Amino acid sequence: MSALIEVPAKLSLAQKYSRLSHRMRDPEWRRFGRNLLLGKFLGLALLPLVIVALHLVTSLLSSSSASADPSVPVMAADLIDQAKNPVINPINTMWVLLGAFLVFGMQAGFTMLEAGMCRNRETVNVLVECVFDTCVCGLLHWAFGFAFMFGGGNAWIGWHMPGDPTKSLIFMKDVGILSVYGATGIPIVAHYIFQFAFADCASTICSGAMVGRTRFIGDVIYSIGVSGLIYPIFGHWCWGPDGFLATMGSEGGFLASLGMNFHDFAGSTVVHSIGGWVAIAGAICLGPRLGRKFKRDGGGPMLPHDLTIAVIGGLILWFGWYGFNPCSTLSIMDNAGAGRVAMNTTLAACTGGLSAVFVVFFMVKKWDTAALVNGFLAGLVAITCPCYWVSDVGACILGAVAGVLVILGMELLEHLRIDDPVGAWPVHGLCGIWGTLSLGLFASGQYSAAGSSPTGVPSVVPHSPEALTGLFYGGGWAVLKAQCVGSVIVCTATFAAAMAMFKALNAVSLLRVSKAGEIDGLDLDQHGGSAYPEYVISTLTASHAVSGDEGDNGALASVQAAGAE
Amino acid sequence: MSALIEVPAKLSLAQKYSRLSHRMRDPEWRRFGRNLLLGKFLGLALLPLVIVALHLVTSLLSSSSASADPSVPVMAADLIDQAKNPVINPINTMWVLLGAFLVFGMQAGFTMLEAGMCRNRETVNVLVECVFDTCVCGLLHWAFGFAFMFGGGNAWIGWHMPGDPTKSLIFMKDVGILSVYGATGIPIVAHYIFQFAFADCASTICSGAMVGRTRFIGDVIYSIGVSGLIYPIFGHWCWGPDGFLATMGSEGGFLASLGMNFHDFAGSTVVHSIGGWVAIAGAICLGPRLGRKFKRDGGGPMLPHDLTIAVIGGLILWFGWYGFNPCSTLSIMDNAGAGRVAMNTTLAACTGGLSAVFVVFFMVKKWDTAALVNGFLAGLVAITCPCYWVSDVGACILGAVAGVLVILGMELLEHLRIDDPVGAWPVHGLCGIWGTLSLGLFASGQYSAAGSSPTGVPSVVPHSPEALTGLFYGGGWAVLKAQCVGSVIVCTATFAAAMAMFKALNAVSLLRVSKAGEIDGLDLDQHGGSAYPEYVISTLTASHAVSGDEGDNGALASVQAAGAE
Amino acid sequence: MSALIEVPAKLSLAQKYSRLSHRMRDPEWRRFGRNLLLGKFLGLALLPLVIVALHLVTSLLSSSSASADPSVPVMAADLIDQAKNPVINPINTMWVLLGAFLVFGMQAGFTMLEAGMCRNRETVNVLVECVFDTCVCGLLHWAFGFAFMFGGGNAWIGWHMPGDPTKSLIFMKDVGILSVYGATGIPIVAHYIFQFAFADCASTICSGAMVGRTRFIGDVIYSIGVSGLIYPIFGHWCWGPDGFLATMGSEGGFLASLGMNFHDFAGSTVVHSIGGWVAIAGAICLGPRLGRKFKRDGGGPMLPHDLTIAVIGGLILWFGWYGFNPCSTLSIMDNAGAGRVAMNTTLAACTGGLSAVFVVFFMVKKWDTAALVNGFLAGLVAITCPCYWVSDVGACILGAVAGVLVILGMELLEHLRIDDPVGAWPVHGLCGIWGTLSLGLFASGQYSAAGSSPTGVPSVVPHSPEALTGLFYGGGWAVLKAQCVGSVIVCTATFAAAMAMFKALNAVSLLRVSKAGEIDGLDLDQHGGSAYPEYVISTLTASHAVSGDEGDNGALASVQAAGAE
Repeated sequence: MSALIEVPAKLSLAQKYSRLSHRMRDPEWRRFGRNLLLGKFLGLALLPLVIVALHLVTSLLSSSSASADPSVPVMAADLIDQAKNPVINPINTMWVLLGAFLVFGMQAGFTMLEAGMCRNRETVNVLVECVFDTCVCGLLHWAFGFAFMFGGGNAWIGWHMPGDPTKSLIFMKDVGILSVYGATGIPIVAHYIFQFAFADCASTICSGAMVGRTRFIGDVIYSIGVSGLIYPIFGHWCWGPDGFLATMGSEGGFLASLGMNFHDFAGSTVVHSIGGWVAIAGAICLGPRLGRKFKRDGGGPMLPHDLTIAVIGGLILWFGWYGFNPCSTLSIMDNAGAGRVAMNTTLAACTGGLSAVFVVFFMVKKWDTAALVNGFLAGLVAITCPCYWVSDVGACILGAVAGVLVILGMELLEHLRIDDPVGAWPVHGLCGIWGTLSLGLFASGQYSAAGSSPTGVPSVVPHSPEALTGLFYGGGWAVLKAQCVGSVIVCTATFAAAMAMFKALNAVSLLRVSKAGEIDGLDLDQHGGSAYPEYVISTLTASHAVSGDEGDNGALASVQAAGAE
Repeated sequence: MSALIEVPAKLSLAQKYSRLSHRMRDPEWRRFGRNLLLGKFLGLALLPLVIVALHLVTSLLSSSSASADPSVPVMAADLIDQAKNPVINPINTMWVLLGAFLVFGMQAGFTMLEAGMCRNRETVNVLVECVFDTCVCGLLHWAFGFAFMFGGGNAWIGWHMPGDPTKSLIFMKDVGILSVYGATGIPIVAHYIFQFAFADCASTICSGAMVGRTRFIGDVIYSIGVSGLIYPIFGHWCWGPDGFLATMGSEGGFLASLGMNFHDFAGSTVVHSIGGWVAIAGAICLGPRLGRKFKRDGGGPMLPHDLTIAVIGGLILWFGWYGFNPCSTLSIMDNAGAGRVAMNTTLAACTGGLSAVFVVFFMVKKWDTAALVNGFLAGLVAITCPCYWVSDVGACILGAVAGVLVILGMELLEHLRIDDPVGAWPVHGLCGIWGTLSLGLFASGQYSAAGSSPTGVPSVVPHSPEALTGLFYGGGWAVLKAQCVGSVIVCTATFAAAMAMFKALNAVSLLRVSKAGEIDGLDLDQHGGSAYPEYVISTLTASHAVSGDEGDNGALASVQAAGAE
Repeated sequence: MSALIEVPAKLSLAQKYSRLSHRMRDPEWRRFGRNLLLGKFLGLALLPLVIVALHLVTSLLSSSSASADPSVPVMAADLIDQAKNPVINPINTMWVLLGAFLVFGMQAGFTMLEAGMCRNRETVNVLVECVFDTCVCGLLHWAFGFAFMFGGGNAWIGWHMPGDPTKSLIFMKDVGILSVYGATGIPIVAHYIFQFAFADCASTICSGAMVGRTRFIGDVIYSIGVSGLIYPIFGHWCWGPDGFLATMGSEGGFLASLGMNFHDFAGSTVVHSIGGWVAIAGAICLGPRLGRKFKRDGGGPMLPHDLTIAVIGGLILWFGWYGFNPCSTLSIMDNAGAGRVAMNTTLAACTGGLSAVFVVFFMVKKWDTAALVNGFLAGLVAITCPCYWVSDVGACILGAVAGVLVILGMELLEHLRIDDPVGAWPVHGLCGIWGTLSLGLFASGQYSAAGSSPTGVPSVVPHSPEALTGLFYGGGWAVLKAQCVGSVIVCTATFAAAMAMFKALNAVSLLRVSKAGEIDGLDLDQHGGSAYPEYVISTLTASHAVSGDEGDNGALASVQAAGAE
């Protein structure tokens, strides 16, 4: 980025300060300064990624010579035993495949939600982006995403079959017909499908905040970055067999003195926070859509063009969440585990939706659609991390809190003048954090800290040391601390990496569409046609949408849309 | 309600009669008189509900002191044995959870069907109502709905774990990690999810007939009434372990001389009739939408605003019905039971759709969309009760009859000047009755009267006393009589309770939106915006929709919709 | 058809030739000549069908006297053993029912895709057609479709339970509560539901190419022909226990010298090629929609009226494909089989979508929605046949090729002036062939040629004679030859039978709607109303849609649509 900056000749320190204070009064320079600082910060943040990448390359080149690490953490050790005698469990395999299919079905939900919440003129872009993204993600997750995330390796990244460093997971190279994932009894190929669907969710969430002004080539590139690098690598930290947050608190592990590892049952942090924080980075780097006026400037959110599609999309997401959370037990043989997760998921969604709609009702005296939908989604995001370990009452409370938070989050973005058309950050970023932390408060001390048991051994360990117990249930601060550490690390790393990526895309002008293209509408500019060429679109709204002074262009665009070939 | 009536001074009987006959000529007084009579009737109908409620409160307060009732019916006795040694069956648990997810998915279908069938101006209201309703239902069913319905207790209502009066199901208080529901092998938490999805269907069905003129606060309140009281209590009568219809005909039970209990495999009565009869009560109490002219007055149904969304919704309902009926076996180990139910479900839907569309074709020479969709839904509703006990040929016939009935039902409502925008009563109320009765005709004598067997014991009992045999298969009138008794009792009680509830809401002006609000459109009035703010809406149709003399308002409303913030 | 032709008096050969060459210059006579030739060709093609039908009737009349044929092929012999001791496998039954439900869900996807891709004026027709078709198919598949296809019988058609000629499958007459399908452990009633959903897909695919100009009565009749005869009979050849392509290469079978039978794991040929080739026959017989100008004439495809609905439909199809392919193992106990199929399905969809969208991007510099959706569908169609036998890398390559083929196929139809509004032939017909042939190239030699194993015996037979090995993996030409033979026979027979059927319908004027009806729009003409009566439809686009010289009618139609009752 520094190549773009004209560096002046040598100056004294006083002169420099004087120039700085003078320039700081100029908005153009303020913007420049902010970008400069941000760039440096991001450069630092990228450093670990580069280290990881280098390590990875080295590891790949020498993977056959790797020996079993004596300091391998407990979880990986368990996996090794099982990997020697893999037994496929058909019942649990069906359960995981059912989950995979349901979570994949959420793509229809995300696409409907985002398409419905955007304006008519940018609908095709949303549709193409969501589908394209899915195609990219499926391929990358097979090529290396799954290996990076779920492979054994080191604390930062994975690449080989858990417990067997001689077998590579890159391009599923050494996956045989009987290869199961560790002790789960699930074939790796089935586990891949389940996890691809999760990765795809994270990747699709990002696009929600970037609707309406992103160049499609930018979409293509950042999709590759998110699906192929950001999600699987940061995900490895939490869910990889030897990720440093997964093994945190164990002897010789990260923060050994904490004595507690990071827990994220189905991905409030791994899927939703990562998705949400990439989204907000994108929205910040892009800036708002042309004509978007914020509340403090006398405007408000641009209107969704099809609430029917949006609400149905939300319901399909809820439907798919029954694959997301319950099937994350990876076992239907874990006593009532899957049922309990399903119940908690339902309750948090219900209270989230109700609390959000009532909060907005007390604010504006209207029963608001977006609040209701974002409310139950917020509840779902929040329960995703703690769903296995909390009681039903806990689920109700933490869902209700999420419903309030999502409204506050939307107001916050409005105040910060950040244009997030579908509320991706309030729903996934903010409530992902809340859900992750809430485990530290609400873990009820009834269920095993190790999570669900694929072999059917009862997971009833009330108030034993093996149970996970939060602050409100007498378990002290340990779980909450671990959750805070994990959430802060993952969210910060994600935001930093995403900002670096988007700034780089911006620097080479690949991120935002041209002004003329945006006035024409993304659909005409990038995809050559409108989603609804036969419907007459109101010039009134269209002109509002691109702000007063571009009213004529708006009207023009609508006629073009109607008559376009 | 009597507080609203100005009672005149004492009069002789002759004077009273003279005044009555005079007043009866005045429409205002006719309306008043009708309401008065209805009110008294409803008061009587409410009495049993109050008794039940009182009994419940007493029971709850003294639940710990309850002893095992010696006269406990057979089904509950079975459950007790099993409850002592609960064993979770993971295969059947997966089957039931799959069913729960599919039935939950029907919410997307209901919402699409109702949204598509309404007018543009009331779409947002439908969307918000359906989702809100789901949130309310999930919470109430957990709080006490499930306990009222499936708990052991008495003939009227339940509250404790079947077979163990010391363990309360209210707020799932005493549900442990190994608690299964009776002899099913299904964890109670999984059973709750399945049954919540059913309750939600019943609750959502109601809203279909009340589209376009209900105040949202009225929606909120009646949703609570239906989800929390009407559905679970009347449902307990049929499906509770000791409900008086479930144990009807047994020694010491209700109508012991009948020797036959009421059967409703997956809920033609419990879910659909209850939903449909609440719906019609709502439509009657609300009256038609402004500008709705009926056929005998030279009008006809108001046009659906989006048939694509409506038809897709219908298909998603059909898809979800494969969870509704087959998974109601609660067991995939019941030989071909689940497959047979799926086949019968399919055949009844097919013949229902075909017969309805051909009936309408012979009437108006057009291939009518609504007839086709309501036809297959009618077939699905009808087969829901008898799906386990009838042969494939029986399913074809009873589905075809349902397809004719639904058309006649819609004509009947049109004749009675009742405005049911989506046909909720013809589909769910009327065909729910038909399906329930049809079991008495078509039960083929091949399958156990006790229903499916979770333990895998063959259910092949052809023409044994344990088999359920209807009139057409040589089984005599017993089954038909039992079905009539059950259907009449549940439908009457539902209609009465719903009328009381809606009359009460009407009396305090919470049921119907203001006339001004209805002219603006429910979406603007209650929810502050239109579903499709960018589309230009035809003033031609809009003016038709709110009748000739309000044409200008219609046009105005459409412009408002287009330009609304 | 010959009755319609006026045969002239006797002429010399020279005179005849002179007349012929003269007439060939007249387009009217060219058309007549083509039809005459086509008719004769079709007559020949119909012959085997008639023979099969006669044989069937004879067989049905004498079914009880049939004895076990000593020359019964190997597969059927296996089935006989198992049929004597049928054991229902509940886990595999759940797996197949899950598949059935997911594949049924594809109806929602097909309906959305077709409805979204058509014009506003023909949307209702698409909706009604797709649902009607499903109802017809469910009934016919129960009545005789399943028996024709999956019943034992002869090489051409089936009618009795596999292995037991005394038990008829017609109307499921002799199906008992314990009847399983051969050695699968799946109850026949469950297998019927799964296969009905497949039949319904084939049937629905046809309608895609015939959108916008087919009389509804024609739809009704051809649906019966496809669902009841074409699909099940030609399907029996490939999937019936004794179909001549299923037993091809065995001793005494068809082409015994080939030593290899035809393979089609989940139906690239059986479902998709059959559907696609019926579709193209329909599109040819109908001719293009009024006003459709092709690229070489300065026009282009008519615009889809709702891309949102179309794309979501595509995603729902992808979702349903996870039932289509993985559940076609009929067993979840086949080691990693189901998971591998799911992975291959995903990868082919991903590469298909990406290659198609990039091909179009390099052609027109736009990121095209239809290309992306048809691309991933093409990948899915292609992988459907080989999904069990190819490696993940193979799946990626063959999916990518399908993505290119589908674009070329659409260009080819455009060049041939064939109007296929949703691309049914390029996606299902062409890529169905490619997928079928690709098995001959990519079968990796790792998996059993007999397909999946319901009993859980490992299917790991790398490079043994039992493994299926294609050309690229050192297996020689045998598989490719067998695939070519099967694909050519089925596609030719389908096209011929479909042309005969459509020509016959055309001859009695039941196929195409009247010109006046088409100008009014199919929805008004056949179904009495528009899908979106309140939306204002652009006269600009409408007039374009029915070509320049009918512009006024177009505008008129749009006003009628908006104001129609």
